[in-house]
Amino acid sequence: MLGLMQDQPLLISNLIEFASRHHHDGEIVSRRVEGDLHRYTYREAARRSRQVANAIEKLGLAFSDRVATLAWNGYRHFELYFGITGSGRVVHTINPRLAPDQVAWIANHAEDQVLCFDLTFLPIVKAVWSKCTTVKHWVALCDANALPADTGIPHLRSYEAWIGGESDDYAWPQFDEKSAAALCYTSGTTGNPKGALYSHRSTILHAYGGALPDALDLSARDSVLPVVPMFHVNAWGIPYGAALTGAKLVFPGAALDGKSVYELLEAERVTMAAGVPTVWLGLLNHMAEHKLRFSTLQRTVIGGSACPPAMIRAFKDQYGVTVLHAWGMTEMSPLGTVCNLKGKQQELPPDRQMDVLVKQGRAVFGVEMRIVDPEGKELPWDGKVSGDLHVKGPWIISSYFKGEGGDPLVDGWFPTGDVASIDPDGFLQITDRSKDVIKSGGEWISSIDVENIAMAHPAVAMAACIAVAHPKWDERPLLVVMRKPGTPATREDILAFFEGKVAKWQIPDDVVFVEAIPLGATGKMQKNKLRDQFRDHRLPG
Amino acid sequence: MLGLMQDQPLLISNLIEFASRHHHDGEIVSRRVEGDLHRYTYREAARRSRQVANAIEKLGLAFSDRVATLAWNGYRHFELYFGITGSGRVVHTINPRLAPDQVAWIANHAEDQVLCFDLTFLPIVKAVWSKCTTVKHWVALCDANALPADTGIPHLRSYEAWIGGESDDYAWPQFDEKSAAALCYTSGTTGNPKGALYSHRSTILHAYGGALPDALDLSARDSVLPVVPMFHVNAWGIPYGAALTGAKLVFPGAALDGKSVYELLEAERVTMAAGVPTVWLGLLNHMAEHKLRFSTLQRTVIGGSACPPAMIRAFKDQYGVTVLHAWGMTEMSPLGTVCNLKGKQQELPPDRQMDVLVKQGRAVFGVEMRIVDPEGKELPWDGKVSGDLHVKGPWIISSYFKGEGGDPLVDGWFPTGDVASIDPDGFLQITDRSKDVIKSGGEWISSIDVENIAMAHPAVAMAACIAVAHPKWDERPLLVVMRKPGTPATREDILAFFEGKVAKWQIPDDVVFVEAIPLGATGKMQKNKLRDQFRDHRLPG
Repeated sequence: MLGLMQDQPLLISNLIEFASRHHHDGEIVSRRVEGDLHRYTYREAARRSRQVANAIEKLGLAFSDRVATLAWNGYRHFELYFGITGSGRVVHTINPRLAPDQVAWIANHAEDQVLCFDLTFLPIVKAVWSKCTTVKHWVALCDANALPADTGIPHLRSYEAWIGGESDDYAWPQFDEKSAAALCYTSGTTGNPKGALYSHRSTILHAYGGALPDALDLSARDSVLPVVPMFHVNAWGIPYGAALTGAKLVFPGAALDGKSVYELLEAERVTMAAGVPTVWLGLLNHMAEHKLRFSTLQRTVIGGSACPPAMIRAFKDQYGVTVLHAWGMTEMSPLGTVCNLKGKQQELPPDRQMDVLVKQGRAVFGVEMRIVDPEGKELPWDGKVSGDLHVKGPWIISSYFKGEGGDPLVDGWFPTGDVASIDPDGFLQITDRSKDVIKSGGEWISSIDVENIAMAHPAVAMAACIAVAHPKWDERPLLVVMRKPGTPATREDILAFFEGKVAKWQIPDDVVFVEAIPLGATGKMQKNKLRDQFRDHRLPG
Repeated sequence: MLGLMQDQPLLISNLIEFASRHHHDGEIVSRRVEGDLHRYTYREAARRSRQVANAIEKLGLAFSDRVATLAWNGYRHFELYFGITGSGRVVHTINPRLAPDQVAWIANHAEDQVLCFDLTFLPIVKAVWSKCTTVKHWVALCDANALPADTGIPHLRSYEAWIGGESDDYAWPQFDEKSAAALCYTSGTTGNPKGALYSHRSTILHAYGGALPDALDLSARDSVLPVVPMFHVNAWGIPYGAALTGAKLVFPGAALDGKSVYELLEAERVTMAAGVPTVWLGLLNHMAEHKLRFSTLQRTVIGGSACPPAMIRAFKDQYGVTVLHAWGMTEMSPLGTVCNLKGKQQELPPDRQMDVLVKQGRAVFGVEMRIVDPEGKELPWDGKVSGDLHVKGPWIISSYFKGEGGDPLVDGWFPTGDVASIDPDGFLQITDRSKDVIKSGGEWISSIDVENIAMAHPAVAMAACIAVAHPKWDERPLLVVMRKPGTPATREDILAFFEGKVAKWQIPDDVVFVEAIPLGATGKMQKNKLRDQFRDHRLPG
């Protein structure tokens, strides 16, 4: 027997209409590519999202056709999120930090029909348009009079000209909530990128889960600045979560340097910001240099890579800002865990609390987790033993776009590729990526543990620990260090810093200094490039 | 094209397993009918819920068969919530404050197969068992040795004997998330009670929505005391929301007097409590009398009836506790709106904030609202004009159990029977129940407005405003007052109190004093009884 409740599908269009109706004057502030600040409200965003939907209808796109974006965090991108999905099409957010060939490959694989891009990315579009065989319409996210002439790009038009003449009256269609809504490719350090295809259902459930007090804690009293890009797993779902709760949105556009982010945080009275550790590094450096304080920021969600404990401490001790360490994946919409203390941990001394806060945190309801040994046997949650991390839930993929790579699930679980431990309270700690762990004489050394120690050294700006082949131990750790300007630490200084902090055999065999550590399109360190570069490095002794 | 996300149904069994795994030592504290406090954890609750499921299987119940409860808020009732629903059966919570004949009528209408009851309610069961023709099994929620002998009730057994021998190993079945999960009858002041049949899907979505920061704001740092009964719309979903977030649960059992509630709030470090205004009246009186303070309570959710502004002020000004005014209905699972300030309202002076906080609040995402005039035309959200309130959403009923009363929806909307205004910020204010409003010479007088003023008079303990027939004006208001002990206010004192607070024609024509105002099974004033009693009351002049 079925319950007798209204059969209302969970659709993304409900989010923008809810925000428009219940938070009509809720603000959305965007730093534009042009440099100025653009301000408007949820009501106007909804109105323009409906114009986008009407414009898409005019193009004659079929249900589930893909419309791609190559864009920064901003109001036009926000409108596309809702106009494309709400009309039944799929928003495909392309990462502009990918090489042009990869952009073309992804657009072709997705069979994008339309591609909307910020003018910043005109050079990419110029380089790829002739290779994107399915794209029929190119839209520059700008005013009509800002559209560059003579680009050679066929059917290029400005966004404002495209939607400007359209009615803002549009009846959002009702359809199966499991319909495809958004497509995002993994950065794919090996092999071709693979697409995660989110549904309306998964997006709404993820927005509910993400807004919970123990997740991102979103309310109509918040002003939220997602530094994490909208081209990267839907900015962790923040645009949807903000519409669900009526939180003010502050979009930083292309200006992600410490100074720009700081100014925006202050001017727009931001209470919550979210991004990868490398962005916060720039912000903290800028603040220290100019002796600045935050006047409204309460918390910052840090994910994408493990956040160095030193950064968590710096935010808390120096600025009174709580870091919410989070973990997720493109394949998970992306939210898996967020680190928030439990009631019983609130009375712990600060040091013991920090032991908890450096972990990646607890699962949001909707995400199930397990760790397994190489034979697939489930391992205990004792906070000590590490295993391959598997996840399950309604906002986690069942397969990749077009079935690429076959069935990725193992007994219904998605293997994350992470190695992790889980403590009895359910706090996850990522030990390493399974491909980054250093296998030394049958023992595993966590590259992340080594990096976290190195990052606490005052002279170290960034550090990567990679495996180098070793005749006796199979692999041994090499530490690649980028020094802070004007801090002449030596190899010996760095190695001495490890003593007493880990077992002797876990200390790197060598340290090399580099000008820069290569970062991927999402701000993560590209250890595969370092492994290539130092493949033949001769370890001492 | 469908998204490629895991096809995981939203099932209530997921909640208890999540709580068991991620909050294994999260506490559940219950004041038992026996008077003592029982303490255990989510892990034990999950274990015993699985024993309940196994015990139900042994009885040979079919999928969707109803298992009824007549019980206070407590750990065994909590286990039944999960064991019954998780195994695919329907938990039917019966309100023990109903007359025995109504209990029997409801049990027969629901075709309950099993009925589980607290010993407090043995007299009811003794009175009704022979009339409950579908009930095959009677379970007293007690230890085996506490089971009364010679009750005459056939197949009576104790809960502990019933589940005690069962395995705690049970694989929760996976089924359609739209399957029926819980049944709750409206108190039905006119006609027969009607059943709202919730599904697993609606329950989980409601639990997500209810836990949001702008709703009940539930986290693993909370200790939550639901005074609102589990036999009344699932205690507003708190048992489910607590499992979803890992909040500590504190169940008050049968002891709902001010002293008992206060002691439990303090002893269990409760941060959030929820209930109807009449219960809080007892608590506030007890506190004032003994000059007590709260040491941990932060907020209290008040719903079920409109909360008098004087009570909101008393909690805030005298005790520093935030009242979250809430509104919902049995037909809505029940959560519709909760009153939380928006960002822009945080800087308002306290008086202006109070103007907002006395309203019923903003819709939780998942609930759509509209107000319409008698012709069904939608009315503006200007905070002034009132109309019939309609709602829509995935946790709102589409029809009553067994299709009773036909299709209750109007154009897909559920008419709530409330008259309300909505302001531009989306804050709902219930003006009245449409049947309680006093229609005086073509103008409407809100009985609630009149009662709120009367309640602010120092001599008034409780007040009800009802319509009395009037030859000229059709209806005129009569105020029925229960005085506080030892406060000899007169009719004239009370009427004088209204002057300057409302228009002259909105002042009641007369005041009558009563020993007690009749309360219904859910603590609401039974105005229909008062209307019967004072049907022939002669208004002066």
